[in-house]
Amino acid sequence: MSAIKPWANSTAYWMQEGPDQDVVLSSRIRLARNIVGLPYPNFQSDQQAEEIIEKIQQALPRLKEETENDWQILSITGLSESARGIMVDKHLMSPALAEREKQGALLLRDDEAVSIMLNEEDHLRIQVLHSGLQLEKAWNLADKLDDILESQLDFAFSDTYGYKTACPTNAGTGLRASVMMHLPALAMSQKLGPLLTSMTKLGIVARGLYGEGSEAFGHIYQISNQISLGKPEKEILASLQALIRQIINEERKTRKFLFSRIPIQLQDKVGRTLGMVKNSYIMQNKEAIRRLSDLRFGLELGILDNLSYEDLNHLMVKIQDAWLNREEDDQDENRKNRPGIKRAQLLRESLAEVNIISQ
Amino acid sequence: MSAIKPWANSTAYWMQEGPDQDVVLSSRIRLARNIVGLPYPNFQSDQQAEEIIEKIQQALPRLKEETENDWQILSITGLSESARGIMVDKHLMSPALAEREKQGALLLRDDEAVSIMLNEEDHLRIQVLHSGLQLEKAWNLADKLDDILESQLDFAFSDTYGYKTACPTNAGTGLRASVMMHLPALAMSQKLGPLLTSMTKLGIVARGLYGEGSEAFGHIYQISNQISLGKPEKEILASLQALIRQIINEERKTRKFLFSRIPIQLQDKVGRTLGMVKNSYIMQNKEAIRRLSDLRFGLELGILDNLSYEDLNHLMVKIQDAWLNREEDDQDENRKNRPGIKRAQLLRESLAEVNIISQ
Repeated sequence: MSAIKPWANSTAYWMQEGPDQDVVLSSRIRLARNIVGLPYPNFQSDQQAEEIIEKIQQALPRLKEETENDWQILSITGLSESARGIMVDKHLMSPALAEREKQGALLLRDDEAVSIMLNEEDHLRIQVLHSGLQLEKAWNLADKLDDILESQLDFAFSDTYGYKTACPTNAGTGLRASVMMHLPALAMSQKLGPLLTSMTKLGIVARGLYGEGSEAFGHIYQISNQISLGKPEKEILASLQALIRQIINEERKTRKFLFSRIPIQLQDKVGRTLGMVKNSYIMQNKEAIRRLSDLRFGLELGILDNLSYEDLNHLMVKIQDAWLNREEDDQDENRKNRPGIKRAQLLRESLAEVNIISQ
Repeated sequence: MSAIKPWANSTAYWMQEGPDQDVVLSSRIRLARNIVGLPYPNFQSDQQAEEIIEKIQQALPRLKEETENDWQILSITGLSESARGIMVDKHLMSPALAEREKQGALLLRDDEAVSIMLNEEDHLRIQVLHSGLQLEKAWNLADKLDDILESQLDFAFSDTYGYKTACPTNAGTGLRASVMMHLPALAMSQKLGPLLTSMTKLGIVARGLYGEGSEAFGHIYQISNQISLGKPEKEILASLQALIRQIINEERKTRKFLFSRIPIQLQDKVGRTLGMVKNSYIMQNKEAIRRLSDLRFGLELGILDNLSYEDLNHLMVKIQDAWLNREEDDQDENRKNRPGIKRAQLLRESLAEVNIISQ
């Protein structure tokens, strides 16, 4: 059994090729669960937090046996700042968990396809992350893991409304299903605003790249169900999936339309971005996200060579401060400028062979 | 004797290598002269204009003989719109002359180093254009040509104040000496404004790329004497030259200073520009001038490979609509977008081999 070190590389299970990856980066199922008889993490003592983790520890052998996977618990306190940052950037844990210095922990499957946050807002948050649009597959796995864990742990449950959670918006199924979508064409053609508004009425919500409260950089939107109560999981998933399908079609249609109407302008936009990124020597994070989004658009339009969605997914992690500073000496006084310089160098080197395909 | 066709190529005499070319693109001497007994062009009939040109015609054999050059008179009316445009962009004639449909003409030396505008604002405007900072050499040539022409023509002259001109600001010597300077560092460091203001007090004026009334695009400034009266030519030239020397030193000092303080930011600026221009598919004129200015700055800083000042001078002509449209069918309805597309293509191809030198 070797140690799982997700911070040692920039790859993640969800980054590989997946269905509908021209629009959907990844699909995530998250189940919130709490253990009977112990207060929610926001109200627990360090010792009570420890108790939770011990209970999980006891459930581990059975989990390993039934899943035929290796699993490991990583305590937040044992992780360096950059290790935590990298895991947040890989979407293995939330920024909130990264800040739970003493109490938080992450139960991770060896292939990083499943990460179970311990003592985040709830005692357990089971997360399954798959590439592209694979909500159902992710759900099936999460459901199975939930069953295995429930056979070992006493989950707080009410016959009236279902699983109990720290925040009532998660109660009931405890389910949050979400997909990360890249919607440049809808954004460019001013169709996104109305679409997002109409979604809200259906109980579907759009957020930025890093979940709640984060801005939508680079035309990447996390779209998820708002309501987890009063409907069975399959129904929640089905209506979300139907909407996602609709957005995918709309985005694809709009791309086609734009490319038929302003092909040179789009080629110009993508070409300039590529040329600029390949020849930049300093670049800040927000700009890099925007540039990578424009390159993804180029890939989606089929006008870039020697570049894959997987490459771009990795780069989205590698351009982050956490990855760039992973070997950095904190004492260094030139540190302030460094990430920008290292980021530009990384992008120059990573994209050196990428070319625009002339029409 | 072959025909002189300055519109058939984008090169010009003044574009070759010259002294101080890292700051000074070209030096120009212009002498305004008028012929006794005929009204100034703004007040003349077509027939009187014709008379002027006939007088010049008669002076031609002697001019050819004494200069050992071929000379030719091109009437404006015989030139296509794009031919005129190209000659304006090459600084062989002013935009005002290009519009003198019936009356205007250009007397051109075969190597294009001298162009004498006929029936522009004055009857004759002798123009000598040299590369880099060569005011004195240009003056000597202009002075010699003036003597040759004066031996054939009766120039309007007052013993009190000198040569008579249509506009009193040109009277006296009839001399306007000007240099085209590239001043990106002074502009970037906000030093240019105060400098230009203090110059005005010395009777020196700064204009944009295409003379009076034109904006200063791409940090290129035409700096010339304002006053042509009351001082001998040599004195006017000496004081202009002294000021130009000062500006050259100031610009060079500022470049050095900037490059020592923010080397990566400058390399980033030049690199991004190069990358963008090499990968653009549509570009408007003003942007192209700005980009070429930034590349010139890169050349001046010594961080660009496979590029010369001469290349950039040619490109400044080639990116203009006149050159891009020289073979264009006016009836074409896609014409509107064309120059932008052709301009981008020209720049992509012309700069394909240019690279940034990593520090």
